[in-house]
Parts: sequence; C-alpha cells; structure tokens
Amino acid sequence: MTALSAFAINCSLKPSTASESSSTDKMLSDLLTAFEPHDVAGEIVRALDHDIRPGVESDMGEGDGWPALREKIVAADIFILGTPIWMGQPSSVAKRVLERLDAFLSETDEKGRMPAAGKVALVAVVGNEDGAHHCHAACFQALCDVGFTIPANAGCYWVGEAMGSVDYQDLETIPDKVKETLEMAASNAAHLARLLKKQAYPGVSE
Amino acid sequence: MTALSAFAINCSLKPSTASESSSTDKMLSDLLTAFEPHDVAGEIVRALDHDIRPGVESDMGEGDGWPALREKIVAADIFILGTPIWMGQPSSVAKRVLERLDAFLSETDEKGRMPAAGKVALVAVVGNEDGAHHCHAACFQALCDVGFTIPANAGCYWVGEAMGSVDYQDLETIPDKVKETLEMAASNAAHLARLLKKQAYPGVSE
Amino acid sequence: MTALSAFAINCSLKPSTASESSSTDKMLSDLLTAFEPHDVAGEIVRALDHDIRPGVESDMGEGDGWPALREKIVAADIFILGTPIWMGQPSSVAKRVLERLDAFLSETDEKGRMPAAGKVALVAVVGNEDGAHHCHAACFQALCDVGFTIPANAGCYWVGEAMGSVDYQDLETIPDKVKETLEMAASNAAHLARLLKKQAYPGVSE
Amino acid sequence: MTALSAFAINCSLKPSTASESSSTDKMLSDLLTAFEPHDVAGEIVRALDHDIRPGVESDMGEGDGWPALREKIVAADIFILGTPIWMGQPSSVAKRVLERLDAFLSETDEKGRMPAAGKVALVAVVGNEDGAHHCHAACFQALCDVGFTIPANAGCYWVGEAMGSVDYQDLETIPDKVKETLEMAASNAAHLARLLKKQAYPGVSE
Repeated sequence: MTALSAFAINCSLKPSTASESSSTDKMLSDLLTAFEPHDVAGEIVRALDHDIRPGVESDMGEGDGWPALREKIVAADIFILGTPIWMGQPSSVAKRVLERLDAFLSETDEKGRMPAAGKVALVAVVGNEDGAHHCHAACFQALCDVGFTIPANAGCYWVGEAMGSVDYQDLETIPDKVKETLEMAASNAAHLARLLKKQAYPGVSE
Repeated sequence: MTALSAFAINCSLKPSTASESSSTDKMLSDLLTAFEPHDVAGEIVRALDHDIRPGVESDMGEGDGWPALREKIVAADIFILGTPIWMGQPSSVAKRVLERLDAFLSETDEKGRMPAAGKVALVAVVGNEDGAHHCHAACFQALCDVGFTIPANAGCYWVGEAMGSVDYQDLETIPDKVKETLEMAASNAAHLARLLKKQAYPGVSE
Repeated sequence: MTALSAFAINCSLKPSTASESSSTDKMLSDLLTAFEPHDVAGEIVRALDHDIRPGVESDMGEGDGWPALREKIVAADIFILGTPIWMGQPSSVAKRVLERLDAFLSETDEKGRMPAAGKVALVAVVGNEDGAHHCHAACFQALCDVGFTIPANAGCYWVGEAMGSVDYQDLETIPDKVKETLEMAASNAAHLARLLKKQAYPGVSE
Repeated sequence: MTALSAFAINCSLKPSTASESSSTDKMLSDLLTAFEPHDVAGEIVRALDHDIRPGVESDMGEGDGWPALREKIVAADIFILGTPIWMGQPSSVAKRVLERLDAFLSETDEKGRMPAAGKVALVAVVGNEDGAHHCHAACFQALCDVGFTIPANAGCYWVGEAMGSVDYQDLETIPDKVKETLEMAASNAAHLARLLKKQAYPGVSE
C-alpha cells in the first residue's frame, strides 16, 4: 500500500492563538485518525494563522500567505476543507480559500488538467445547528470546478438541533453515525486517491 | 479498454411527446457524443415519460415508474443527471429523481456500500440564463450523499446572458468552451468509472 | 385591525390520505396558531392532494390541479410555503409549486407588478436533520423573484441533530425557540401584509 | 415624501485603490441612480477599504473596521449588499459582512427586534457568468435571518453567457431588462422602507 498524504485547512473564524479551541479542528483531527489505518498521514493548518489575501490568483504579492498553503495542497494527495457553519453557510474564510483555488482554472497543463487533477477532496463541516448539507454543496461544486475529485460520501459533518448551542468538541464521545461517516469518507478517499495516483486522468489533447 | 455504459435522465418539465424539443436533451446528446471515443455507450431517458411517484423508497408501489429507471441506474457505470434551470434551480423533476435515489442510503451491503458505490456521476445543466453552478452544487451534494463519485470537472452547462431567452438547442454550433467541458467531463468520467469498476471501493466492515 | 387571510401549502411527499401524519402539517398548524392574535385566518392545503402538473404556466390544461391553488394564493394576503427537507433541500413538491409560480413573471399589470405584489411570504421547514437554512434560501429567492415580499425573520424551522430521526410532530412540546420564531414571523408577516394592503407598491410605469 | 437613506457595501475582492475599476461599483451606482426619483440618497463603501476582522461580534476589538460600517448600516433605511460572483457564489468579502451582521441575532430590544428591524435590503450581483440567483438566495436568507425585510424583486443582477468574460462595466449601455429590474427594486425598496419607518414592526413581548 503506497503511503499517501492528506492536507487539511481549518477555516474557523478564529486563529489558533484564540483562547477557545475549535470544533472544526476536533472533527479534522477525528478524520485524520480515521485515515490512519489507510496509511494516510495528514497535517491540519488553521487558515487564519496565515494572511490569505483576497483575490483569485495563486500569488497576490508580497506578504500573501496563500502560496505556502497552495504548495501544501499541490503536494498532498488528499485535500480536506474544514469549515464551521455561520448563518447556515460556509465561513468567509472557506470562501477565501476557494477563491484562491479559482486560479487553478487557468493553470492547466497541455492536456487541460488543472493542478488539482487526480487529487481527492473531502469537506468536513461542524456547527451548532443546521447548514451542513449546503456547505457540502457549495464546497463540492467549487472544488470539482477547479479539478478535485469527490469520492462517494465525501461529506463529513455534525450539527446540533435547530437553534441549539452545543459544540461538537463538547460531545462526550463522537456519535456513532459521525464515526461511521468519517471512516467511510477516509476509506473512500484513500482508495480513490491511490487509484488516481497510479493511473492519472489522461486529460484531453487541445 | 473495457466497454462502459452511461445512463442519462433528462429532467425536463416536458415529456418527450411535447411539441417543443428539449435543450437538455441536446446537451445530453452532445455529452454522449463526447463519450464515444472512450468506448462508453449511452442511453437517454426522459423522466416525465415515466410516472415517478413522490417518495423516498425504491418502490412506491403499483404503477410506480421509478423501479425500471432505478434498474438502469444500477446497471450503468456512469449516471448523468440532466436538468433545465427554473428560477435558478434544478427542476422539480430532478429533485424527484434525487429523492428516489435517497433510498440508497438504507440499501447498503455488509461493507456499508450503497448501490451507487463505484458509479460515477455527471450533471448537465442548461438554461436561458443563470443558475448552472447552483444546480451543480445541489446535485453533486445529493449524488455524493447517496454514494456516487464525482469526477473532476463533472459540471457541464450552458446558460445565456442574464434575463435572456436564447435556447441551447438554437445555438448554431456548440460553443468551444462548452465542447471542451463536455470532452473533459467525458474523459474524466470514463477514466474514473473504469478504475472503480476494476478496483471497487473496499467499504468499511461494520 | 383589518382581518387578513393566510394560505399555506404543505409540500410533503405524502398526500393527506397517507397513514402517517405530516410534521410539516404540524408546524404549519403551529404557525397558524401564532397568527390568531393578529386577526389572520388561515387554511392549509396538502399539495399532493392536487394534481399539480409540471410546467411553468398558470394553467397546464385539462386536469391540472394548480389553477385552484393559484386562485387561493392570489386571494390571500399571506402565503406560507411549508416543505419537508429531503437530502438537505426543499422537496420536489415545493419545487413544483415554485415552478408554477414562475408564471407570475409574465403576468404583470401596467405598472410592472406581478400577481404576488403586496403579498407577504413565509417559509416553514421541518426535517429530521439539517437543511433548513438552505431551504429558506432557495424558497426566499424564488418567492422574491415572483413578487412576494419577505418580512424580517420569515424563516420558521425545526430540525434535529445531525443524522437523527426524531420527527417534529413527536416532540412533546414546541421548543421555546421555535415558538418564539413562529410568533415573530407571524407578527412581522401580519404587520407587513397590513401595511402593503393599505398602501400598495406603486410599481413602475413602462 | 420623507427623505430616506441607502447604504451600499461593495464586496469586491479589490480595494478601491486597485488599478481596475469594479463592475459591482457600476451596478451599485446604477442602482443609486434608480433610487433618486424616490428621494433616497445613498452612499457606496468598498468593504476592502476597511479592515473588517473575522468574527461574529459587532466589535472584534482594536483596529476592527467593522464598527464604523455597522454604524452606517444602522443609520440607513435601506441596506444594499453588492457582491461579485466567484465560482458561482457570493464573494468571501460578502460572506464576511454577513458574518458580522450575525451579531444582530443577540442584539434584540425588549420586543425581540434586531437592529435591522424595519430596514429593507437589496442584493446587487454582477459576474462574467452564472451565479446570480444563488447569490441572491444565500444573501436574502442571511439578511432575513438578522432582521432585514426583503421587498418584492429585490434581486438585481447581470451576468454574461456561460464561461464568458465580458464585464458589466464594459457594456455600452445598461441592458433594458437590467434597468427595469433596478427601477422596480428601487421603487419597491423605497416604498417599503417608508412604510416601515412610519409604522415599525411591533415585535413580540417576551
């Protein structure tokens, strides 16, 4: 079994220096645990620890923190976008990350393949209540547009009851169904990334 | 190269007996043409020619037209959902098809795999104006939830200028960029379906 | 205080003859109760009790059940769209209703006002888990497009914890926050409908 | 006719010091022109000219540029959210603005009314292609959640043909249908804001 690498970005509205810890971090960490039996080693980075400039190019100039993150995305086999839910939607930080990935559209090789070609993406979403499916939808569409492949059951999530305020990180244990979802997502992503690493998309001659 | 099969459902609001022809049909047909060099043979069915009953089970009883379509989906390697845009959103017919696929969630095998496991899905969208990306988002999410795999660049579409009324089927030729998108989607879908047919998702032991 | 009328459509996937009762019905009924102190009398109709034909015209011909419902919408001051969540999205039945309302776009008067001008709309959503905000978003956009006015806090909803299976109708009591939301939505809708009934949108001379 | 005020935020990914001008700015300016006959005076601010910090509180501390903008929103009768489309979705900057408005949820008065109560919101969207309806949907939902009222036909937009690259600001004239939409949106918003300014939502006693 070829070793694979996963790179996760936590799009919390808080940097890692914030006093409160992040439920999104907890889920990303639970997901990386689910990847271990599949020989996938992962890294989690907090988006807000980096100065990701607004824009749709791969490098927005001096001081831009994106190029370093972009490099990690391009180096990894599996990309995991982790976002909290605010107002039923992905965070502005997740949107910023997706906008920066938009540059992939014009960075195709001679076969029309983008830098994400052959890479597999998962989307992990946590919130106090409601919004996960829409976050999956918005993120899957954008990630697929820029060349990522979405494995079966790629949407990981937890949310509480409507208008609730429980945090994922405060649950005593990971709910069984969430655990199953993480395990299936990890298994599918690892399998698919391995296949595509060995036999790349042929692309289309221009 | 193993021969593959694709099955497309046209979720137009008109049955095939309607006097007007369907732009969605035209795009699905253009997509099947793009599949030909990849040894993928396809079939297009008009959803409204069948009495697909409301519900979320695989068989809603006597007279239900869904089981026959479901059988074709399960038999094919590639599933193509074709929908027109109404009010910027997928058609009610597309929604009905997705709701019927919801039954897959409880039809898992002993490894937790749904009937769509290993099948690849594309979404083809046409409208007079605006709405394609949202249709992709909503459909990718639902299809991924029920076990389909979404290849890179799986979103095919054409829409005209804001508040316009031009039909895809009335364009003199397929716009170059649409053609490229169809070719890339077909190439990616065929490649991925072939890989997954040969090496199925292992699933997760319960 | 002028008496007002509200008309609600329950877009459940089950007709009212189904053996199981509808959680969407329960919420619509709770909402009508919240309207009582505002002198608003309401009616709830189950969409699937009527043969609403696919299409985007106000009358799709013989046997079409829509014209009778459309008449009730046009006669009422307040329109309430009630939908269950399936796959994180509004039901196909809700989509069908919205598509039929699309006809309003071409039924403007000499001031460019659609049949829904001056009418206020609320959206009530129930599900076992996740999806309410997206349902609100999709429905608000479509309803606003065809001329309805959306009062502040027009989104009523209840959903359970992620991947849960509790039904709204099986809760022992209406959760406090849901009750507050229903009361605020009713208060706002009644106030706004009353204002607009007395002083209609002037429209724009063509 | 009471004079009213409108406040517009342009959520472009470029600050106003950027060399390129903004199509979103052009549309917001066209919209303010449409407001003139209704005695509504407006101001447009570029979000990226201010250091809007990530978070969901009204003041995220020293250096936060949001409180000054929040003050303008609270002072105005009409709020206009202007966003470009990226990947078929509202910009990360628009999302950031919506997240900051989330604080309104906990800033209710003794009648449960948020700071946006009685204020009317419009959403103006421009893009090279596709995505306007989804942007309207996502923004209407979030704005309605935090207490804004959405008038009939509140969605202003222009997008070009699929995969096109024409900019709104490069069109020789405003397309007739866009002009009509702007005029109707302005007329409806001014009428509604005037009604609600004179007769405020009563709210609900706790």
